[in-house]
Amino acid sequence: MTSYKIFNDPLYGFITVPKGILLDLIDHPYMQRLHRIRQLGLSYLVYPGALHTRFHHALGALHLVQQAIEILKKKGVDITEEEAMGTQIAVLLHDIGHGPFSHSLESILVPDFNHEMLTIQIMHRLNEEFNGKLSLAISIFENKHPKKFLHNLVSGQLDMDRLDYLNRDSFYTGVSEGVISSERIIKMLNVHNGELVVEQKGIYSIEKFLIARRLMYWQVYLHKTVLSAEQLLINIIRRAKEIYNEAGLASITVSSLAYFLQSNISVDFGKEDLVNRFCRIDDADVISSIKEWMHCKDETLSSLCTMLINRKLYKIRLSNTPIEKSDLEDARNQVIALYKINDKLLPYFAFEGSVTNSAYNSQDKVLILFKDGTVCDIADASDLPNISIMSTVVRKYFLCMAKI
Amino acid sequence: MTSYKIFNDPLYGFITVPKGILLDLIDHPYMQRLHRIRQLGLSYLVYPGALHTRFHHALGALHLVQQAIEILKKKGVDITEEEAMGTQIAVLLHDIGHGPFSHSLESILVPDFNHEMLTIQIMHRLNEEFNGKLSLAISIFENKHPKKFLHNLVSGQLDMDRLDYLNRDSFYTGVSEGVISSERIIKMLNVHNGELVVEQKGIYSIEKFLIARRLMYWQVYLHKTVLSAEQLLINIIRRAKEIYNEAGLASITVSSLAYFLQSNISVDFGKEDLVNRFCRIDDADVISSIKEWMHCKDETLSSLCTMLINRKLYKIRLSNTPIEKSDLEDARNQVIALYKINDKLLPYFAFEGSVTNSAYNSQDKVLILFKDGTVCDIADASDLPNISIMSTVVRKYFLCMAKI
Amino acid sequence: MTSYKIFNDPLYGFITVPKGILLDLIDHPYMQRLHRIRQLGLSYLVYPGALHTRFHHALGALHLVQQAIEILKKKGVDITEEEAMGTQIAVLLHDIGHGPFSHSLESILVPDFNHEMLTIQIMHRLNEEFNGKLSLAISIFENKHPKKFLHNLVSGQLDMDRLDYLNRDSFYTGVSEGVISSERIIKMLNVHNGELVVEQKGIYSIEKFLIARRLMYWQVYLHKTVLSAEQLLINIIRRAKEIYNEAGLASITVSSLAYFLQSNISVDFGKEDLVNRFCRIDDADVISSIKEWMHCKDETLSSLCTMLINRKLYKIRLSNTPIEKSDLEDARNQVIALYKINDKLLPYFAFEGSVTNSAYNSQDKVLILFKDGTVCDIADASDLPNISIMSTVVRKYFLCMAKI
Amino acid sequence: MTSYKIFNDPLYGFITVPKGILLDLIDHPYMQRLHRIRQLGLSYLVYPGALHTRFHHALGALHLVQQAIEILKKKGVDITEEEAMGTQIAVLLHDIGHGPFSHSLESILVPDFNHEMLTIQIMHRLNEEFNGKLSLAISIFENKHPKKFLHNLVSGQLDMDRLDYLNRDSFYTGVSEGVISSERIIKMLNVHNGELVVEQKGIYSIEKFLIARRLMYWQVYLHKTVLSAEQLLINIIRRAKEIYNEAGLASITVSSLAYFLQSNISVDFGKEDLVNRFCRIDDADVISSIKEWMHCKDETLSSLCTMLINRKLYKIRLSNTPIEKSDLEDARNQVIALYKINDKLLPYFAFEGSVTNSAYNSQDKVLILFKDGTVCDIADASDLPNISIMSTVVRKYFLCMAKI
Repeated sequence: MTSYKIFNDPLYGFITVPKGILLDLIDHPYMQRLHRIRQLGLSYLVYPGALHTRFHHALGALHLVQQAIEILKKKGVDITEEEAMGTQIAVLLHDIGHGPFSHSLESILVPDFNHEMLTIQIMHRLNEEFNGKLSLAISIFENKHPKKFLHNLVSGQLDMDRLDYLNRDSFYTGVSEGVISSERIIKMLNVHNGELVVEQKGIYSIEKFLIARRLMYWQVYLHKTVLSAEQLLINIIRRAKEIYNEAGLASITVSSLAYFLQSNISVDFGKEDLVNRFCRIDDADVISSIKEWMHCKDETLSSLCTMLINRKLYKIRLSNTPIEKSDLEDARNQVIALYKINDKLLPYFAFEGSVTNSAYNSQDKVLILFKDGTVCDIADASDLPNISIMSTVVRKYFLCMAKI
Repeated sequence: MTSYKIFNDPLYGFITVPKGILLDLIDHPYMQRLHRIRQLGLSYLVYPGALHTRFHHALGALHLVQQAIEILKKKGVDITEEEAMGTQIAVLLHDIGHGPFSHSLESILVPDFNHEMLTIQIMHRLNEEFNGKLSLAISIFENKHPKKFLHNLVSGQLDMDRLDYLNRDSFYTGVSEGVISSERIIKMLNVHNGELVVEQKGIYSIEKFLIARRLMYWQVYLHKTVLSAEQLLINIIRRAKEIYNEAGLASITVSSLAYFLQSNISVDFGKEDLVNRFCRIDDADVISSIKEWMHCKDETLSSLCTMLINRKLYKIRLSNTPIEKSDLEDARNQVIALYKINDKLLPYFAFEGSVTNSAYNSQDKVLILFKDGTVCDIADASDLPNISIMSTVVRKYFLCMAKI
Repeated sequence: MTSYKIFNDPLYGFITVPKGILLDLIDHPYMQRLHRIRQLGLSYLVYPGALHTRFHHALGALHLVQQAIEILKKKGVDITEEEAMGTQIAVLLHDIGHGPFSHSLESILVPDFNHEMLTIQIMHRLNEEFNGKLSLAISIFENKHPKKFLHNLVSGQLDMDRLDYLNRDSFYTGVSEGVISSERIIKMLNVHNGELVVEQKGIYSIEKFLIARRLMYWQVYLHKTVLSAEQLLINIIRRAKEIYNEAGLASITVSSLAYFLQSNISVDFGKEDLVNRFCRIDDADVISSIKEWMHCKDETLSSLCTMLINRKLYKIRLSNTPIEKSDLEDARNQVIALYKINDKLLPYFAFEGSVTNSAYNSQDKVLILFKDGTVCDIADASDLPNISIMSTVVRKYFLCMAKI
Repeated sequence: MTSYKIFNDPLYGFITVPKGILLDLIDHPYMQRLHRIRQLGLSYLVYPGALHTRFHHALGALHLVQQAIEILKKKGVDITEEEAMGTQIAVLLHDIGHGPFSHSLESILVPDFNHEMLTIQIMHRLNEEFNGKLSLAISIFENKHPKKFLHNLVSGQLDMDRLDYLNRDSFYTGVSEGVISSERIIKMLNVHNGELVVEQKGIYSIEKFLIARRLMYWQVYLHKTVLSAEQLLINIIRRAKEIYNEAGLASITVSSLAYFLQSNISVDFGKEDLVNRFCRIDDADVISSIKEWMHCKDETLSSLCTMLINRKLYKIRLSNTPIEKSDLEDARNQVIALYKINDKLLPYFAFEGSVTNSAYNSQDKVLILFKDGTVCDIADASDLPNISIMSTVVRKYFLCMAKI
């Protein structure tokens, strides 16, 4: 009778999960739901292989944290069995609050809530179900546990989340620029004054990691066609909410999703019902509903839905400087001529916006541990100014307009 | 102004598609739909990374056939520009008739039809739309074109379909046993007496390919948990059809799918409506509808749906010999005790069946071209009897029963 | 102060070796010598990347046995610290008795000795130097230790030697057919009745492993051009020994190698001098001497040497049946006409021989452990007769002749 | 009868070389010699897998230039058959002037000559042998051919040499930080005003390439232990030259190498003899001779040789600032105490030096071609100052001393 379950993973070969609470959590419907939430939303419209899910990512991050804990213990860091388990649980569940299409629809479906807040809600619900066995995990997740480095593994510049998703996203998109040496970085981790640090030898791997992150931002996460698709999806949900009643969407919307469209539901997440309802929706409900709406009577909504399903995305232009008023005006005029729409509907068909990114957030430092025992921020430790530069926030502006 | 579009592919790096009819076909809603049809159905419940789509596979097969055509031309094989294009189109569209969950629901949703028949229907529809530009492709696909080797590239023991899917399925499941040397095999292709042959040097690669195929069958395609999930899905659709009217499913089923549940629609696929209707359904509709049915009033259907969504699959036992009557009886009795169901419903909760596989079909040979110009079947050419053995049909029997 | 050293390995990423006797052994001149012994002899003349050394292979096997020991311990197998260390040492040193060009010149340079016998000699010498710390390792290596499964890890159908070399040879030659899932196989290892077994789940990986081994034999280890190069090398050393004194080779031969050419030295390996002398020769000495002999006064030797250095290898023909006498006669006549040589020299320029291979040696079984606790030979456990067939000994015959 | 030869390559799968002059050149003893010249000299003492040769690298660069030529032609760039062949020859032979241990011993063995000068000499010799068929290749190599972009492919910021060696060195060392997307970069190449440019889409790949190059410098090419080994090798050759006659090295040195030690031979490379003599020496001669010298009567030389062969390298310290006089003094005193040597010999056992590196040489620009047809230096085109920073020359200082 084996005491563990093995998952195949194209990245790491095998992921081994011991039987017990970790496997019970994986088998829970809240986690199984993540099989139906893609990690990268609509990116598959640009990178056809980018279909991996939050479920797979959660397993991958669990695998990495198992390695990290083993390495730290071998280096003499004191981690109890309970802390090891708590950290694994925290990493496994770190993204459980993500809804359909992950970041794209965050705070659109459930206004005033982000996925971290939902993660906490769901963790507490699971803690009740599992009779308090998640208390330490929650404490680590919320950075209330005294051993801060355990929280660093769950959330921070070098957390297992990032170490997994950069590699995984890079692998599935086929953008090899993002491949990082997670194994190398993990082997270089250590603890100093209660905080997670990287040994001097790992400095080049970290530099590579930060650069990979920046490249992945511009090549994948903020790729202009991905942006265009996401803006289209957001506008679809906005419009659906706006005209939900008048257009008779109720009968042609998947019911689990319908609940979140009909009213402002930010109210009271403490009610069991709301957590349960949230955990019922996934990517399939959104896609299926959008396909139904292609035939609804609101022309704006049906046009937007048809555009998305048939991949006739907005034409998008990225720019390092703010979009000129005249350019926006031009786009609007073209759209008006084409679609015969009124001013109120214009923002659905021609609009501007901006996105930002900084690869290295200087507030949450990567600390390097030197052989002589001193510690300093990698931005000061690296022999080239690459890293300090990466903390610069880069903002890009975009102009979108519907095509013919 | 570039004259091609580049797709990233984790397997091949870049897939380059020239502008023109190939790209127009890729942009057509019928092809875009394949973004929403997973190549391996429910296998992701066992292999979390196996989420790749028919769309990606079609691109991959296109990429391989481009290479094959180039190699053959370099070897002096006469292929005109039109034939090259026709073969590429035939390969690109070879799976366009697949419906939701590919093979799993084949002939369940549309009785008496398989995906090849639907592919032909859709190709003819596209041929009308594209003013006859697909005629040669259809002729090659249907093996009516005199140069038989072009058809061999599209469909046969060593077609681009298999060369792509073995690698792709192996890659995304992480089952490295299935990795084959597509590039090597393609470099060894040649034409002899109008048929596709493999040069002698490639004999080990072919042997490896056939073995990989066999291993993929047992480890992935017919993996017992995958089988269990597929049987559950099939039973769900069967039950939904059976009680469609009485259980009031109409209002809680995605409308595009509903059409295929309400009646026997095998009738007349010549009608435009039916092709269009078929091309509207995808994996998302099935998943979303199943989630709705979890709350329907038919207990059998709601139980089955809940089992699938929460991944409480049938317990399954595989066997090399037929299932004993007494074992089936036992299973049924357990299920009756557990679920309090009547005999009529028993087959949804406890049942037996069988699956077969032969890695090498001796009717459709792989021909080896020797240096002295002679040609023979690989089953006779290989120095070990491995290959002839692989043409043995292996049948396995299974017994499924719902768990608590 | 770190307590381990990290080696980069393209196959496994990082190989971690703890400080202490393992690292001391690695730093010993006898092990450092393996940096200069290629794993695959002259195969680089066919596969330009096949330059990896016995040193790298020894590290790789050490890495795998570390994993195997960890897995077995997690499964509850009793392995003491001393046994773990002894097994690691035995694996690290398992090939230390290899001389220049590994198998090719085995028993040519030191008649009546093979590399296992030399390995034992060297291990004993090291045991003296290290004050008896290798005693347990030697006992495990010689299968005198009661826990037989530890010996199985060092030497057997599934030893770490094979698990490393198949992957490593496949990786460096670029013959992807040989890639095996070492990690998978190791995760499936267990112990039953004191013997190493593989859990049922690993059956396909083993099947793949045996097939890979067979393919590597024919594509690499017994590749006809590799064979041709090896025969040439053997003939060069034979001729050099034969005419060592008369041709004045002493002054143009690297002195460490000269010792082994001048006389029959199979005598007394117990003498310290002989072990030391053997550990002084490597690939470089052989290559360098051959380059010098290109200009010696024995025409036969200088011809053979020039052929090897300039890669004008024997023309070779492989055959499943013995070489016909008439074919050998023809070859000899051509060579006589070409080189004007007498009968005595003929065997250096035209000759026949044979090689054999069986992928699975049925005397040394791979045992499969089933879920019900029973154990059986994989040849009986697999559902297809592939494996039993692989225990057939395949013999191939070759005919070699010098080209113009 | 095939018209090409296939080489297996772990990086690119297959390298196909058409029969004719390319294959004839590969078969020439001057090229075969490169089988015995390692690409990375002594780096294998740090990275055990780094044993790949100049021969393999030359094949790899040839493979890449074949792809580049094909891509450029598809984009409408005018390249005649003769120019395509000339460029391939130039790339194939670009490193043929490298001697034993490549860069390490450059200008030590043949003073006042570097490998480019020797390459030219050897190309001219081959041109005579091949009846002028290399004239165009030489013209392209020397940048005398009017189509400058062909020279750019052979030598420049983005030449095939770099695209191959970064990947190859990264692959064989296992330092994954250096993996670059050669295929991607090549697909983005174009020609503008007669110069090689990169299309805008490739900007991130180039950025990654330049960063990878920098990381490879510090992690591999200038790794401190590699530096230490190279300094040791250089000192060995220097000492051997210095005491060649007095220590009686003649009889214990491989004769082909002896020629280069006995006298200053920078004289007249036009003489056939010298090119021939140079092409006779390789890594094996140096290693074999060093092993002989371990037992010579000059204690300094024998000590240094023993250090190298047994891998007891200099202790080395790297620093961003010049080595303090007092530190060098300390080192010298330690060495004197230890080895009882006189002042004259001190520089062989304790010494300082420096190395420099700039990843991007701003004199030889990478030009980016924008969609609007404009062209600019990547240092100006990239949205972050990373690249301009990389043109900073970084100098590091080192202090070496022999260990006990």
